[in-house]
Amino acid sequence: MCGDRTTVNGTAVSTEKPLHKRTPYESVGDFLSNTSNFKIIESTLREGEQFANAFFDTETKIKIATALSDFGVEYIELTSPVASQQSRDDCEAICKLGLKAKILTHVRCTMEDARVACDTGVDGVDLVIGTSSFLREHSHGKDMVAIEKAAIEVINYVKSRGVEVRFSSEDSFRSDLVDLLQLYRAVDRVGVNRVGVADTVGCATPRQVYDLVRTLRGVVSCDIEVHLHNDTGCAIANSHAALEAGATHIDTSVLGIGERNGITSLGGLMARMMVGSREYVMSRYKLHKIKEIEDLVADAVQIAGIHAKAILANPSTYEILSPEDYGLNRYVHFASRLTGWNAIKSRVEQLGLSMSDAQVKEVTAKIKLMADIRPLAIDDTDSIIRSFHLELQEQKN
Amino acid sequence: MCGDRTTVNGTAVSTEKPLHKRTPYESVGDFLSNTSNFKIIESTLREGEQFANAFFDTETKIKIATALSDFGVEYIELTSPVASQQSRDDCEAICKLGLKAKILTHVRCTMEDARVACDTGVDGVDLVIGTSSFLREHSHGKDMVAIEKAAIEVINYVKSRGVEVRFSSEDSFRSDLVDLLQLYRAVDRVGVNRVGVADTVGCATPRQVYDLVRTLRGVVSCDIEVHLHNDTGCAIANSHAALEAGATHIDTSVLGIGERNGITSLGGLMARMMVGSREYVMSRYKLHKIKEIEDLVADAVQIAGIHAKAILANPSTYEILSPEDYGLNRYVHFASRLTGWNAIKSRVEQLGLSMSDAQVKEVTAKIKLMADIRPLAIDDTDSIIRSFHLELQEQKN
Repeated sequence: MCGDRTTVNGTAVSTEKPLHKRTPYESVGDFLSNTSNFKIIESTLREGEQFANAFFDTETKIKIATALSDFGVEYIELTSPVASQQSRDDCEAICKLGLKAKILTHVRCTMEDARVACDTGVDGVDLVIGTSSFLREHSHGKDMVAIEKAAIEVINYVKSRGVEVRFSSEDSFRSDLVDLLQLYRAVDRVGVNRVGVADTVGCATPRQVYDLVRTLRGVVSCDIEVHLHNDTGCAIANSHAALEAGATHIDTSVLGIGERNGITSLGGLMARMMVGSREYVMSRYKLHKIKEIEDLVADAVQIAGIHAKAILANPSTYEILSPEDYGLNRYVHFASRLTGWNAIKSRVEQLGLSMSDAQVKEVTAKIKLMADIRPLAIDDTDSIIRSFHLELQEQKN
Repeated sequence: MCGDRTTVNGTAVSTEKPLHKRTPYESVGDFLSNTSNFKIIESTLREGEQFANAFFDTETKIKIATALSDFGVEYIELTSPVASQQSRDDCEAICKLGLKAKILTHVRCTMEDARVACDTGVDGVDLVIGTSSFLREHSHGKDMVAIEKAAIEVINYVKSRGVEVRFSSEDSFRSDLVDLLQLYRAVDRVGVNRVGVADTVGCATPRQVYDLVRTLRGVVSCDIEVHLHNDTGCAIANSHAALEAGATHIDTSVLGIGERNGITSLGGLMARMMVGSREYVMSRYKLHKIKEIEDLVADAVQIAGIHAKAILANPSTYEILSPEDYGLNRYVHFASRLTGWNAIKSRVEQLGLSMSDAQVKEVTAKIKLMADIRPLAIDDTDSIIRSFHLELQEQKN
């Protein structure tokens, strides 16, 4: 009677599984909470690619994706196949690996992007509205109708391809709440799989995250994903607050790498969730593989692991704040395959050169081509811009 | 009428100062909130000294204290003068600098410690109950009466010396709430300046911090300080939640250094508070000095700044969790001037040596003396222990 087994009505019953042990650090466990029932969307190969020093070649991407899938993340999100030819090839290659994790790609909410995304063979497409200004205060009702119509068209298309679909806004916390809820309710009604809430500038507090997700939870019946930047050091706490409020999916990256000082780190989220949801975490994720994955990604971003972590440790790049307040200069990262032509346009202007928009787009394409081959420093990009400008001058003369 | 100045009743009135601009990221601003009215207790020279690689000589301590005071922190907390002779000398030296910041020292809640602390010339004494087990569940009413009586005696003594006094428990979130509130109410009634809430294991969530501080705010009328560890990546968010709930003082350290992966970082707190309380932060703290202070401390802990930050970036030392879950070994830090004899005792046992408690205390004193001179690696400590043990053997023979 004092072993692991006992007998009830003559049948041996295992009592090995301990009763749920209460800890004073348990998360608020009401009916909304998903702190013991969440999924990870691992975005090292999308958000992480936007990190200042990130350059992942095909082999590295495959290694990272495989390691993440082995670790147990439910989803792996990849850079848009529209970003560059290499991004597209890599996306197709990773889809063909047959990993346990589902493969997603993150594209603008347009028919062309959605079509290219579906053609790569992904399991799901993460749609994002191109610019947050759509949802800012003072947006016109007319715009909202148009956005909603466009969104529904793209969502229906992705669903018709038999592919999972998420719809997200950028900068959700600075969006007009009523417009946001209306739009999300509309996409929920046409059967979107998930809606996404993004703290793009990384300035939300846990209470704000809780409140927005809780409100949204009452409006849509689909899953809710959160994408939380770490500019003010709250990404992990905000992720936890989102789960308490009913979010179902958390975006992470290894070491938290991403734009500026990144997003919720995979390792940090694991530490947070282990405290209150140990059994759930242990049942899904192979924690002993974390260090190996962190080392892999640190190597891949071509800096010591220590350095990669360092940049993310302290919110010392304050994008929403003025770097001058801190005696720092703003670092503009524009030389990667993900670079938009507007960034190049502003660099052309900084260099004091004159080009038409069409010409800027042409040189941007050259830069992207080069960025597929090797990581570009500012000097490299400047060289490409200058030599292109020289060609233009020569053509004129 | 469209310039910076306008006229009211014939008097020029400046309209330069912009009206308070609302941001969607503003903190909850109810009557409890101190998000725009907080003070910093900078603990790099106390909590930070417990960081694995920290070794601050007198000159460095003076540099750090001076830089922090110039930066604008309201309080600087120093290691207990009881920890070692050097700690005591340094405490006295820093008190004599006449810095703008008030100087505090952190001691056990005993008459001897309080007496030594007051003798150093500090502006305030931070009392902490020696062990959290006092306030654990199942503590007996009798113990509580004794603790309360002892606490009041020490507090009255410190006050009689004309010195500010704070009273704090360790591990407040795992303490019995009723006992904690009763004790804090009692010390509040005898005029303690502040009570402190500590998340010693770094596992509280923002909601838990908010709830405990909010409850305490209704019980005591004195100031409330929070000391929040970062094991699960929530220290900054928890500090913010504490201020929303009515806390008045936040403990920080530069780069967040402290035991395991540290506490709320000074730079991180600044980033967080700048978002919603920009004017307050700018009026009190010289943000442009942050980088210099971070570099100073990084150098002082004898590792690249990058490395110091790295260790704190990712909650990858999970003291409350089992390191084995992560495929890591527990790192035991015991060789510093802050080392207690119990840590040495366990090392003596690990080395397979036999000593009485009195002998362990004797060798601990030797180690502390050596640790005042230079940082000790495990090998150094082992050598001291072994040679002491050899002496004992020789005495026997």
